[in-house]
Amino acid sequence: MSSTTEKTKQVITSSELLEHWQGHRALTRKVIEAFPDEALFNHSIGGMRPFAAMVMEFLAIAGPGIKQIVTGETEKLEENIDHANDKKKVLELWDKTTEVINEYWAKIPEEKFHDTILTFGEYEGTVWSSIFYFIDNEIHHRGQGYVYLRSLGIEPPYFWER
Amino acid sequence: MSSTTEKTKQVITSSELLEHWQGHRALTRKVIEAFPDEALFNHSIGGMRPFAAMVMEFLAIAGPGIKQIVTGETEKLEENIDHANDKKKVLELWDKTTEVINEYWAKIPEEKFHDTILTFGEYEGTVWSSIFYFIDNEIHHRGQGYVYLRSLGIEPPYFWER
Repeated sequence: MSSTTEKTKQVITSSELLEHWQGHRALTRKVIEAFPDEALFNHSIGGMRPFAAMVMEFLAIAGPGIKQIVTGETEKLEENIDHANDKKKVLELWDKTTEVINEYWAKIPEEKFHDTILTFGEYEGTVWSSIFYFIDNEIHHRGQGYVYLRSLGIEPPYFWER
Repeated sequence: MSSTTEKTKQVITSSELLEHWQGHRALTRKVIEAFPDEALFNHSIGGMRPFAAMVMEFLAIAGPGIKQIVTGETEKLEENIDHANDKKKVLELWDKTTEVINEYWAKIPEEKFHDTILTFGEYEGTVWSSIFYFIDNEIHHRGQGYVYLRSLGIEPPYFWER
């Protein structure tokens, strides 16, 4: 057991939470890459959405979600993002959101994480619980993407690869 | 935006993180309940494990994982738990672990979350990153359980139900 410093006398710091999320997002990026081009946009099990549609949900939530935490303005949940059925385009959108998250995250002071917010004008919570929801929702649906890949006979990336 | 107090001038408190995890565990319990008895133990997609085997992994990690954070003693990762192919038994094991987590969590002081530990004698991390791994791993595999349910024509519980 290493000793703790005064600075880290809390469960998790803001910069650790950002790194944690971007680590998960790096894994999701690998899952997108692992899909064959067509399957990303049309493979489905049990009437569920293709993985690309889940990814559009992640993008609709992540950037605008962090923005509204910083600005206090209501963002629309807009999942209808033009990806042109093109994996390269999906990955470009992904990388742009990575930058948006980093840019706006730097503007959230640690004392703001317990403020109450209404994300997308609809979902009430604290800043921390909203961000945890964004992350958990991505892990949840990405896990579904793993089943899609397995059902296609493709080995998904290791879960601990970030 | 509500105002913050001195007490909550951090991203998330220890008791909030416990409540967050137990909320997720309550949802996982509902997913277990949603499975037909036989399918819980034998339904599979793409060569993956049945959901019951994933649940045994959650149980192998959660209780012993929190115990070793408190005691500093190495626990074995023992997924070979006798569930007797009985959903009732699985739910009983689940509820016992709920109590174990609550009992041991109360013994983790907040300044310990940045200590370095080697969970199950194998996985190095901080206390917080280990606990996040326990939670994230459960969300990930539970998401896979959702696909199993959908492929059986069963509507899973809402993701936000905790």
